[in-house]
Amino acid sequence: MNDLDKLRHSCAHLLAAAVVSLWPDAKPTIGPVIDDGFYYDFDLPQPISQADLPKIEKRMKKIVKNWSKFEKQQLSCQKARQLFKNNPFKLELIDELQKDNQPITVYKSGDFIDLCRGGHIDKPNKAIKHFKLLSVAGAYWRGDQKNKMLTRIYGTCFFTQEELDRYLAQLEEAKKRDHKKLGPQLDLFTFSSLVGPGLPLWTPKGTLIRSLLDNFVWQLRSQKGYQKVVIPHITKKDLYEKSGHWQKFADELFKIKTREGHLLALKPMNCPHHTQIYASRQRSYKELPQRYAETTMVYRDEQTGELGGLTRVRSITQDDAHVFCRFNQIESEISSIWDVVNTFYKTFDFPLQVRLSFHDPKSFDNYLGTPQLWQQAEKIIRQIAQKNTQDFSIAAGEAAFYGPKIDFISRDSLNRQWQVATIQLDINMPERFDLFCINEKGEKERVVMIHAAIMGSIERFIGILIEHFAGAFPTWLSPEQVWVLPISDKHNQYADNIFDQLQSRSIRSVLKTEGSLNRRLRFFQEAKIPYAIIIGDKEMENQQISIRTRQGKQLNNINLESFLADLQAEIDRKSAKLSC
Amino acid sequence: MNDLDKLRHSCAHLLAAAVVSLWPDAKPTIGPVIDDGFYYDFDLPQPISQADLPKIEKRMKKIVKNWSKFEKQQLSCQKARQLFKNNPFKLELIDELQKDNQPITVYKSGDFIDLCRGGHIDKPNKAIKHFKLLSVAGAYWRGDQKNKMLTRIYGTCFFTQEELDRYLAQLEEAKKRDHKKLGPQLDLFTFSSLVGPGLPLWTPKGTLIRSLLDNFVWQLRSQKGYQKVVIPHITKKDLYEKSGHWQKFADELFKIKTREGHLLALKPMNCPHHTQIYASRQRSYKELPQRYAETTMVYRDEQTGELGGLTRVRSITQDDAHVFCRFNQIESEISSIWDVVNTFYKTFDFPLQVRLSFHDPKSFDNYLGTPQLWQQAEKIIRQIAQKNTQDFSIAAGEAAFYGPKIDFISRDSLNRQWQVATIQLDINMPERFDLFCINEKGEKERVVMIHAAIMGSIERFIGILIEHFAGAFPTWLSPEQVWVLPISDKHNQYADNIFDQLQSRSIRSVLKTEGSLNRRLRFFQEAKIPYAIIIGDKEMENQQISIRTRQGKQLNNINLESFLADLQAEIDRKSAKLSC
Repeated sequence: MNDLDKLRHSCAHLLAAAVVSLWPDAKPTIGPVIDDGFYYDFDLPQPISQADLPKIEKRMKKIVKNWSKFEKQQLSCQKARQLFKNNPFKLELIDELQKDNQPITVYKSGDFIDLCRGGHIDKPNKAIKHFKLLSVAGAYWRGDQKNKMLTRIYGTCFFTQEELDRYLAQLEEAKKRDHKKLGPQLDLFTFSSLVGPGLPLWTPKGTLIRSLLDNFVWQLRSQKGYQKVVIPHITKKDLYEKSGHWQKFADELFKIKTREGHLLALKPMNCPHHTQIYASRQRSYKELPQRYAETTMVYRDEQTGELGGLTRVRSITQDDAHVFCRFNQIESEISSIWDVVNTFYKTFDFPLQVRLSFHDPKSFDNYLGTPQLWQQAEKIIRQIAQKNTQDFSIAAGEAAFYGPKIDFISRDSLNRQWQVATIQLDINMPERFDLFCINEKGEKERVVMIHAAIMGSIERFIGILIEHFAGAFPTWLSPEQVWVLPISDKHNQYADNIFDQLQSRSIRSVLKTEGSLNRRLRFFQEAKIPYAIIIGDKEMENQQISIRTRQGKQLNNINLESFLADLQAEIDRKSAKLSC
Repeated sequence: MNDLDKLRHSCAHLLAAAVVSLWPDAKPTIGPVIDDGFYYDFDLPQPISQADLPKIEKRMKKIVKNWSKFEKQQLSCQKARQLFKNNPFKLELIDELQKDNQPITVYKSGDFIDLCRGGHIDKPNKAIKHFKLLSVAGAYWRGDQKNKMLTRIYGTCFFTQEELDRYLAQLEEAKKRDHKKLGPQLDLFTFSSLVGPGLPLWTPKGTLIRSLLDNFVWQLRSQKGYQKVVIPHITKKDLYEKSGHWQKFADELFKIKTREGHLLALKPMNCPHHTQIYASRQRSYKELPQRYAETTMVYRDEQTGELGGLTRVRSITQDDAHVFCRFNQIESEISSIWDVVNTFYKTFDFPLQVRLSFHDPKSFDNYLGTPQLWQQAEKIIRQIAQKNTQDFSIAAGEAAFYGPKIDFISRDSLNRQWQVATIQLDINMPERFDLFCINEKGEKERVVMIHAAIMGSIERFIGILIEHFAGAFPTWLSPEQVWVLPISDKHNQYADNIFDQLQSRSIRSVLKTEGSLNRRLRFFQEAKIPYAIIIGDKEMENQQISIRTRQGKQLNNINLESFLADLQAEIDRKSAKLSC
């Protein structure tokens, strides 16, 4: 545990102490550190809300003054049970510790004692100063909806006020950029209560962004020899029994019983279907690699409570691809995908970190195949990573159930991390589906599969993009690129002419003539359109244009041709920034 | 009934007479005329097969000699029941005739008497000469699978031997062109027993054809102001209860129960989802028409026995579009779709017939809305049809359940009819979903919907195209357009150079160097590739090329540049024929 995590975990103790001090019947349960802060779950005698947080903070500040240190004590089970006799949640934890032969430790600070494995700051009364409680939410005990609903309080804590302020400002900014708010406001997508939660409907503008992104990925892939394929969204159970998805995805599979009584499923992944295209004819080694790409929706029966905007949906559009190749082609194929990932993310000024997601040898039951196959696959992945980047981390237990992955993690403009692209090496699915090629010797040779997604979920990726750009998309992605605004009626004809020129060059432009110029400029700003061309007397006289950017920059006496050339170059470069 | 139908119906009687003569316990049921022939359904004491057909034909020829005429008799119910007392099927028909107060007539020819409404040829012994029994199949009595399975015998009959021969030759040709055989052979699509029947998987080549067709439709639509949208493939039951699809599609809906117990359905149509995009914000009359286009799969729980190749599938890709507009925009919107239909089908040299599919006033229960709304909608449709074509027919009872349709019927190269494009006027769905715009007076004004598909089901359309072209697609649609064939190794370098030039112009080309030239030319022919460029000594020497077309035409001493120019023009024109 690093120092910041220790600070935050200590602050979680302090939160629990304050809650118990305010509501003596409250039963603290667990209070772990999370990204950017901590939470603590309580069983409370009465409901509390956001409005109660300042009161709790105040009590925390009072209590911490008497906390000079955290004192560790190891207890017998019996003593521990005695100490927490009124708290069934802690008793359950104690039972488990005993079962696993783990030591039972408590930590005392001031008058407050909590069951805890440790990880605290040295002088709480000096260190815990810059904290903030953030929100209240419901959460089931141990995340299981069969259990009791508890009250979760989220908070954060930093070593300096400056860091805390910066973080809170970032949270404020994130709220303003929330794609759930901006998306419908910019008319990119909508939800319908008749269609249901987690099922976004994409409007013309949102669909345009989806297509532009998808076409970009396809442009990069087609240069690498990929071919598009198309599969249905459903399948007989048999396919997933063979692939292992039936068991693995159990709860998340949308299942369908046909009128004839057959059991079908909506696909949660595309790989098993794609194997059937590969397997549809005998393949010579000369035909390999076969590289199939398909942008298609997969469906997962997510629980309603876990859905959120575009981040977690039930209809997920994946820019999926599967390569079927020989062992000695793995490296060049993965490197070629890595190229695509780099080019794609560079376009958005998204820095990428690489994580090798390996299996967890301790719970091998979760995976297909043998330990030998996994070691072999992970060795290859590690070698390729070493060739492609200086800097990668390894995460045990993060692999797919069929093989190890190279995951790409990006940071957006608010410095938040998102797992985006993924490349997965799979030596299990080809075994299960008996996929082979006929090699130079005329023998059957087992092939391998590489799974790759560049954006991953297009829904989630557009959610990230909206927040990254605060809705102000780069010009190449903006559904509307230029508004043409004649100041008054007498400028309409010249404006028309300019509008026609924009249209003929396929610049997505709109001619807006109604309402005062100021009103139109306000709408222009709100709609986050990159450029407005303003036409008045002077512009007509000089046969020029004035330009207003969405950032409020005004440029007068511009030659239309030179603006169009700059604009086209900006679009062709897929620039993340306006060219003026 | 026209004369040919009378001839064929008479021949159906003859078939029944022969079957009863051969199997005295056989019970004839019904024997109607169909497109291109007739069938008769029998309850037989023993199964029969294709192998029995010559025997039956022989008996027919013998019996018909004594058939000088069809003698009509009207019978009382009682007498009719007595006459058919051993045939429960005929008794059921008699009951119905009685219930409906219809006259009960029988027709006698030779010794054979059949219950029949009439429609026979005058001198059967002279006229019924040129017939052929075609196939045997199972069919449920009255098409209901709860009823007994009967034996259906298909046949056809013509006035002249020449016509019969031509028809049989056409059947033979159709068999050779069968898309179920040609599709997998040309590697366009495949089925997997793990995925299930009715669920085609589209290989890279088939997907390319799909994309080219779909892009063509989109190109035509985008010129008419359409915008793409994207919807999920599932929805809550609520959407379909509101639209009426839940009741109407009952059996054909794939239903899904979520883990939380909600009832969802896979979409059998896209219109209800699209209404939710329209309804996602208030629309001013200035924003109308809103024109949404989407190529997306719909799903229908077809019975396994009814599936066939691409003609009837469970995953149907529709090139669907919905226009939301005002009443006074209907005409121009429908005409604009009509334009697209014309341009699209002209490309394939498909002649189009127009059918106005109206409601059946006798069974108004099958439709949404009021008779007044229907009359109004059908009047508009008729007016538009009159403006757009000289020649249309009207079919009562063929409307969609929400409105009348303009259906386009095409004839392929084997002169078979296919219903392809459709334009549907819908004044019911907007009522059910309360879809409106704010008009010039600031009031809510009900809008109308126009549904339109150009190809309809892309699966079915590609099935038709494969058979129409016998797999020899026009160059613009051919997955591979040119093969480059160097005669021997020493020609490889020059061939490489030509291949590069083709590639750089985005001509879909393949360089084939292995095997003898003859072997390669045989594969070229089988794969139905439009052109092969053959490179030998002479071609290298003169810096020219030789060309072989898939029709076997050989062209020597061709200048590459001029071939490429012709080829590009052929592709750009989307020509249905090779340019050389």
